[in-house]
Amino acid sequence: MKWSKSHIYTVKETPADAEIPSHQLMVRGGYIKKVSQGIFTYGPLILRSIRKFENIVREELNKRGCVEILMPVVHPRELWEESHRWTEMGKNLLKFKNRTYQEFCLGATHEEVVTDYVRRDVKSYRDLPVNLYQIQTKYRDEIRPRFGLLRGREFIMKDAYSFDRDSDGAIKSYKLMYEAYSAIFKRLGVKFVSVKADSGNIGGKMSEEFHILADAGEDALLVSESGDFAANVEVCPAIDAAMVSTSSAEMLPKEKFATPGQKTIADLAKFTKVDASGLVKTLFFTATEEGATEIKPICVLLRGSDELNPIKLKNLLGLSNSPLMLNDEEVRRVCGANPGSCGPVNLKIPIYMDSGAQGLKNFIAGANEDGFHLKNVNIDRDFKVTQVADLRLAHEGDRNPSGEGFLKSFRGIEVGHIFYLGSKYSKAMQANYLSEKGESTPIEMGCYGIGVSRTVQAVIEQCHDKDGIIWPTSIAPFHVHMSVLDPQDEAVATMANGLYEQLNAVGIECLMDDREERPGVKFKDADLLGMPYRLVIGKRGLQSNEIELVVRRTKEVLKLNPGLVIAKIKEHLQSDLH
Amino acid sequence: MKWSKSHIYTVKETPADAEIPSHQLMVRGGYIKKVSQGIFTYGPLILRSIRKFENIVREELNKRGCVEILMPVVHPRELWEESHRWTEMGKNLLKFKNRTYQEFCLGATHEEVVTDYVRRDVKSYRDLPVNLYQIQTKYRDEIRPRFGLLRGREFIMKDAYSFDRDSDGAIKSYKLMYEAYSAIFKRLGVKFVSVKADSGNIGGKMSEEFHILADAGEDALLVSESGDFAANVEVCPAIDAAMVSTSSAEMLPKEKFATPGQKTIADLAKFTKVDASGLVKTLFFTATEEGATEIKPICVLLRGSDELNPIKLKNLLGLSNSPLMLNDEEVRRVCGANPGSCGPVNLKIPIYMDSGAQGLKNFIAGANEDGFHLKNVNIDRDFKVTQVADLRLAHEGDRNPSGEGFLKSFRGIEVGHIFYLGSKYSKAMQANYLSEKGESTPIEMGCYGIGVSRTVQAVIEQCHDKDGIIWPTSIAPFHVHMSVLDPQDEAVATMANGLYEQLNAVGIECLMDDREERPGVKFKDADLLGMPYRLVIGKRGLQSNEIELVVRRTKEVLKLNPGLVIAKIKEHLQSDLH
Repeated sequence: MKWSKSHIYTVKETPADAEIPSHQLMVRGGYIKKVSQGIFTYGPLILRSIRKFENIVREELNKRGCVEILMPVVHPRELWEESHRWTEMGKNLLKFKNRTYQEFCLGATHEEVVTDYVRRDVKSYRDLPVNLYQIQTKYRDEIRPRFGLLRGREFIMKDAYSFDRDSDGAIKSYKLMYEAYSAIFKRLGVKFVSVKADSGNIGGKMSEEFHILADAGEDALLVSESGDFAANVEVCPAIDAAMVSTSSAEMLPKEKFATPGQKTIADLAKFTKVDASGLVKTLFFTATEEGATEIKPICVLLRGSDELNPIKLKNLLGLSNSPLMLNDEEVRRVCGANPGSCGPVNLKIPIYMDSGAQGLKNFIAGANEDGFHLKNVNIDRDFKVTQVADLRLAHEGDRNPSGEGFLKSFRGIEVGHIFYLGSKYSKAMQANYLSEKGESTPIEMGCYGIGVSRTVQAVIEQCHDKDGIIWPTSIAPFHVHMSVLDPQDEAVATMANGLYEQLNAVGIECLMDDREERPGVKFKDADLLGMPYRLVIGKRGLQSNEIELVVRRTKEVLKLNPGLVIAKIKEHLQSDLH
Repeated sequence: MKWSKSHIYTVKETPADAEIPSHQLMVRGGYIKKVSQGIFTYGPLILRSIRKFENIVREELNKRGCVEILMPVVHPRELWEESHRWTEMGKNLLKFKNRTYQEFCLGATHEEVVTDYVRRDVKSYRDLPVNLYQIQTKYRDEIRPRFGLLRGREFIMKDAYSFDRDSDGAIKSYKLMYEAYSAIFKRLGVKFVSVKADSGNIGGKMSEEFHILADAGEDALLVSESGDFAANVEVCPAIDAAMVSTSSAEMLPKEKFATPGQKTIADLAKFTKVDASGLVKTLFFTATEEGATEIKPICVLLRGSDELNPIKLKNLLGLSNSPLMLNDEEVRRVCGANPGSCGPVNLKIPIYMDSGAQGLKNFIAGANEDGFHLKNVNIDRDFKVTQVADLRLAHEGDRNPSGEGFLKSFRGIEVGHIFYLGSKYSKAMQANYLSEKGESTPIEMGCYGIGVSRTVQAVIEQCHDKDGIIWPTSIAPFHVHMSVLDPQDEAVATMANGLYEQLNAVGIECLMDDREERPGVKFKDADLLGMPYRLVIGKRGLQSNEIELVVRRTKEVLKLNPGLVIAKIKEHLQSDLH
């Protein structure tokens, strides 16, 4: 492809709304252009990367017997009512009426549509198993889209769905997809990890996420030192590094004291000179689903040094989405004081306590009176706990929940997610088959997603330097960036065009920068766009019969005889891709 | 691909809502499944055809310097307001609000988004020309979806947009796209024709449609006997075969007569014993855009034997959409009688007369009094005509408007449409460039669509027989359908599997029917699905060392030595594709 004919424009200014390097680089490289919040046009270069990644996905899935279909973007309400997700999905599901007042939504996932597709044909056990997938545009009405393609509203996704006779079959399908995903991300050529994960509102029994590691990743991951355990912090059990045994201290008399203006745990720790881990944090939530008309207040207690894990609370309460915190007005109604002076004593609502806090004695908590706290508060004597449970966020240094040693923390970008669903959808939607014994049996399902557009940006988030993107060869828009320094010079033009033709002829993809620009501009753009190999063809080099080959990742420079260029690049590409 | 592992299910019953053969065959072959009115899931086989066609399109466009991008499905209102199409497009544009009450629509076409994309980068004449295209899902809120993929709501389209410095450049781009489209449909291997067409509400100066010919096609096409002229009936000038000269008869006195119960032209012709071509048909429309609060009534007069061409009327009145007919109540208010007794005499509204009617003298028209008509009505004496214009539908037998001879009629399915737009969008959206003289100049645009999913069904509508589809090799899901008659027999299984591997190895795509079904079922399904070549491998044949090769189109049967099968199929495919 020749730059001058391809509508490629790099941008000098870093856009104000691009907070992380990959988003900045995508915009500066002209790879994407924002059309609306979280909605983008993919330019000619990024589309090539997306298509390459799609093909890697396709090859690995086809190899494992998955069958590609294509389902629609617009779904009728009726199907989503069958699974109850029309309401369960909340406002992330974008709903609308068409001109004849029928209700539809934009497909955020396709469990309903694919289950309907399969139930129409599958009659007997002989029709199973089957695994259907698609690569399709999806839409989720994110309340706050950000980070470019990482949290967009419209995005490209690969979603696969397995249908099996029984749990054994379903687990086999799940494991095959785990293998496929590992192969896919390995072929990408980036650092990734798979972790235990929450099933969210997809529902299901087993679930693992695939993350591309990157410092700016949205997800916190905890991996054991030995590598035998890895989990998203969302579901990671929290076990204190040193087991805190219940204090044997005597219970002291409870005492109220003034804490004027002390609103946060940090304030209070400083004011009382007690470490935050000896204070108790009191939080209030409603145990109802989003959109409920009434609130059902509950209280959560944690050590002051810990953070609540909302997913653990959601799962404990059996909700579809993370519970909402009460607002100040609601808190005052429940405990008589503003947040900052609340505590468990005399509350009339269920109290859930994190297991890390259960060993505390004679601790400090809010007095439920503005500007006052209580000291020497004690469980059972001063208040009753409804349930003790693991509710805090795990963190680096916690104990490995499945073996020896401790946890280390990483940040990752979730790019794949696999779920063993069981029969949630097949039961709700009557997707049954006749077993060998002639019994009508719900199909066992799994679902498997890869954020295609998201992956491409996640790769950039891992693979870049201060000058720009460093594409892995697997999904680089082009293998080679040819910077033609003096395009008007006849010898240069002849050499450049000849080499360009030769590269194309042997299947090496080349972006030829044939613009009338200064060398500095061309080099900057080449670094920014980040193709793995750069060829520099200029008048001066050709005078000594040399072409420069620059390796983007290492910045290594090779001065080559023009006749050797193709062989050298071939050698590099072969070693990159195998 | 092996049938038993691919979730392919043919259907015995013809679905009630499938009115034309291609729709019936698509459903019966399990190619598509309806999800909602005009919304389908594409099964594994049809997806292969769609992808093959997409690749033909891509190759021909890339070859001509077009650049592929991908624009979003969801568009913000603001862009569509700039072009005024937010309202102009009427109810075909599906609009909705997101969770934060911003307004969006589903992309029905992408002129706005692409013009916005281009105007951000194009600064000077050096940045032009450029031609950008995408292959993307589109949505139009068709009021009455029917005919499967031919008039769906959600569909796959290739849309390209050219941007040029001036009219000469734009016409060059337009012609290049005409050439690309001709090459694309030629490679499909079906009968097609390109015709002059209306620009609809896209707006523009030049426009041609590409049609795949088929008896059930929605469009009527008129082609001159010599082939020098072809037009969609929508825009075809109507010239009477025999020029009707103005009658020299004396004007007779106007006379009212009773015509009780005579409501249609056919009734009246029978009742009065005057040929329909000597009667005058009076129609009423409102010269306002869809959604207007007031009506602006106008009257249209035609010979009783002619039909109005609503596109010609729309263009005459300068409207964006075809004008709406007045309802009975509105007609009564305008002329004092019900439709069936209306006429031009004493009307107080503009009267447009088709040029075919202007030669009439002493004709019969409604009396604007229920149950009465007038005879000996005459133009000028009895009523004034606001404008005489070509308003009737042309038909077979009319004179060729651009040369000798007469018009023949065909039916076609519109699969491609090219437009020279001019500066409609660039002016409305300030997409300008600095000319060589330093003047800010609006970009000259063209737009070019191919209905990708539509084309695939149109091919079936042309290429089928009573038994099923007859795929052209170009986009057949598979080249070869292998019917394995005795899959349990060891010799058969060995031969079938061996041949299957060999076919795959040389790039011949094979669908292997490895199901445990009777030969009759397998043959019926093979005919229905319609791959170009069928191999029949059975016990009996192998005993005489023979495999049957059946050509789907001709039903020709060749009995081949197994060793010769691949060479024979290769030979066929090569001749099909070159």
